[in-house]
Amino acid sequence: MLAALRGDGRTVHAVSRRREPGAGADGIVWHRCDLLQPGAATRLAADVKAASLVHLAWHVEASGVENYRWVGASLELVDAFRDHGGRRALVAGSCAEYDWSAPQPLGEGARRRPATAYGIAKDALYRAFEGYCAETGLSGVWGRIFFVYGPGEPERRLVPTVVRALLAGEPARTSHGRQLRDYLYVADLAAAVVATVDSEVTGAINLASGDALALRDLIGVIADQLDGRDHLAIGAIEARPDEAAEVRADVTRLRDAVGWRPGTSIDDGVAETIAWWRRRAAR
Amino acid sequence: MLAALRGDGRTVHAVSRRREPGAGADGIVWHRCDLLQPGAATRLAADVKAASLVHLAWHVEASGVENYRWVGASLELVDAFRDHGGRRALVAGSCAEYDWSAPQPLGEGARRRPATAYGIAKDALYRAFEGYCAETGLSGVWGRIFFVYGPGEPERRLVPTVVRALLAGEPARTSHGRQLRDYLYVADLAAAVVATVDSEVTGAINLASGDALALRDLIGVIADQLDGRDHLAIGAIEARPDEAAEVRADVTRLRDAVGWRPGTSIDDGVAETIAWWRRRAAR
Repeated sequence: MLAALRGDGRTVHAVSRRREPGAGADGIVWHRCDLLQPGAATRLAADVKAASLVHLAWHVEASGVENYRWVGASLELVDAFRDHGGRRALVAGSCAEYDWSAPQPLGEGARRRPATAYGIAKDALYRAFEGYCAETGLSGVWGRIFFVYGPGEPERRLVPTVVRALLAGEPARTSHGRQLRDYLYVADLAAAVVATVDSEVTGAINLASGDALALRDLIGVIADQLDGRDHLAIGAIEARPDEAAEVRADVTRLRDAVGWRPGTSIDDGVAETIAWWRRRAAR
Repeated sequence: MLAALRGDGRTVHAVSRRREPGAGADGIVWHRCDLLQPGAATRLAADVKAASLVHLAWHVEASGVENYRWVGASLELVDAFRDHGGRRALVAGSCAEYDWSAPQPLGEGARRRPATAYGIAKDALYRAFEGYCAETGLSGVWGRIFFVYGPGEPERRLVPTVVRALLAGEPARTSHGRQLRDYLYVADLAAAVVATVDSEVTGAINLASGDALALRDLIGVIADQLDGRDHLAIGAIEARPDEAAEVRADVTRLRDAVGWRPGTSIDDGVAETIAWWRRRAAR
């Protein structure tokens, strides 16, 4: 996403807890900041005085008290950003806000019933963010991200688990794999975020592919590219009894109001992902 | 409320933006703190290390960006309180969280559809607070306050407006007054808050009378006590077209789970309120 933003000739400031602060070789101006420290976002906003904000930071685990800390930290960030002249903000929401047993595909107005701390906290922030934008006139958009795969994904997730097992010549154990999920390649998600923050769309919008892919088919693509069909152990793990049969976004708003659609096929996305894990293993 | 808490022999710490810090003549330990400053709640909690928390502070206007600042400030306060050994927290919610067009009386599970920044922000905080308590094991209770009257009420509200007009011998102009509202005398609310935080009830609970009082009847009680029926101009002001006919709490939980019910009649509450405004006018 940073590369896409920078490519458009903008000055891009990025925030990390770890990166060396200052102008990086990548042309990005880095700031070292832990946004969970009360007051940190206020100081950062006063320092940067950005016109637009893309806020993707969060605790990316279904449980954990940090999810609730991000509610307050996000509101502080958005408020301080606006206080210092900010006009346009995109904040990352999640398909975890929705009731997954609602009719598919899930439109932005679909029933909400978050089942995890992550989803509950995102839902609470969404409500406050929408109200905040209505109250202050800040142009805000809430991008609900569905399932994402690609380089850099945490190892314990499905795609990395299967890729790494097959690269090592070990069995890849999964559940039955008939679950339908809306997967987007990570670089496509980055492009969707940039297109959305650059649009004038406000309120909630699904950032997703709109396609329902069976997990077993996704696993099959990986296995075919790695010639590893024999090592698949589909059904070796019990699926959770409450697992939703389908989670898919209605992407009408993204397609019609933002004018964006995905550009990467599953075959290409999986190939890039495998190449990334190969390079990583070779390091 | 502070008097009620202190009467039980507890050490009571109270927070104000204005009071002189230190042990007051009232036996309360005062802290000067603006909880809206990021980081302030964290420092306060580390200083006090309270076992129980009653959090009533907010921006008490239907609109205003401060409502959203209180979402983050409240989460910071609750989290810091727990971090420093806090075990039991009562946070003030509001009947403004509910959809007032839902069937009356409003139980805690009634449909929610806040119509103001105040209500939206309280609703968002409620969701985050409930999730936070589930995640951390903090014993938390969310007290939804309905309509309150008594000494100290802001002047622009209904009861002070009528009392002050009639005390001055001026006409008291109101709308038709057929709206039914659930009013609780302020000292009763204080007692309900203390009883609730001292109970083991968790989740949302209505803090209210459970009675629907027509505003014209409330106005009538004031007029009778001030011999001011002739100065009432009921119907002189147009009611808002979207005003709810009735807003009343189902107080089953408060009565059965907390074991509390109101002790002050409308006649007595109005008499106390008038006496307070008389003393204030005489100062």
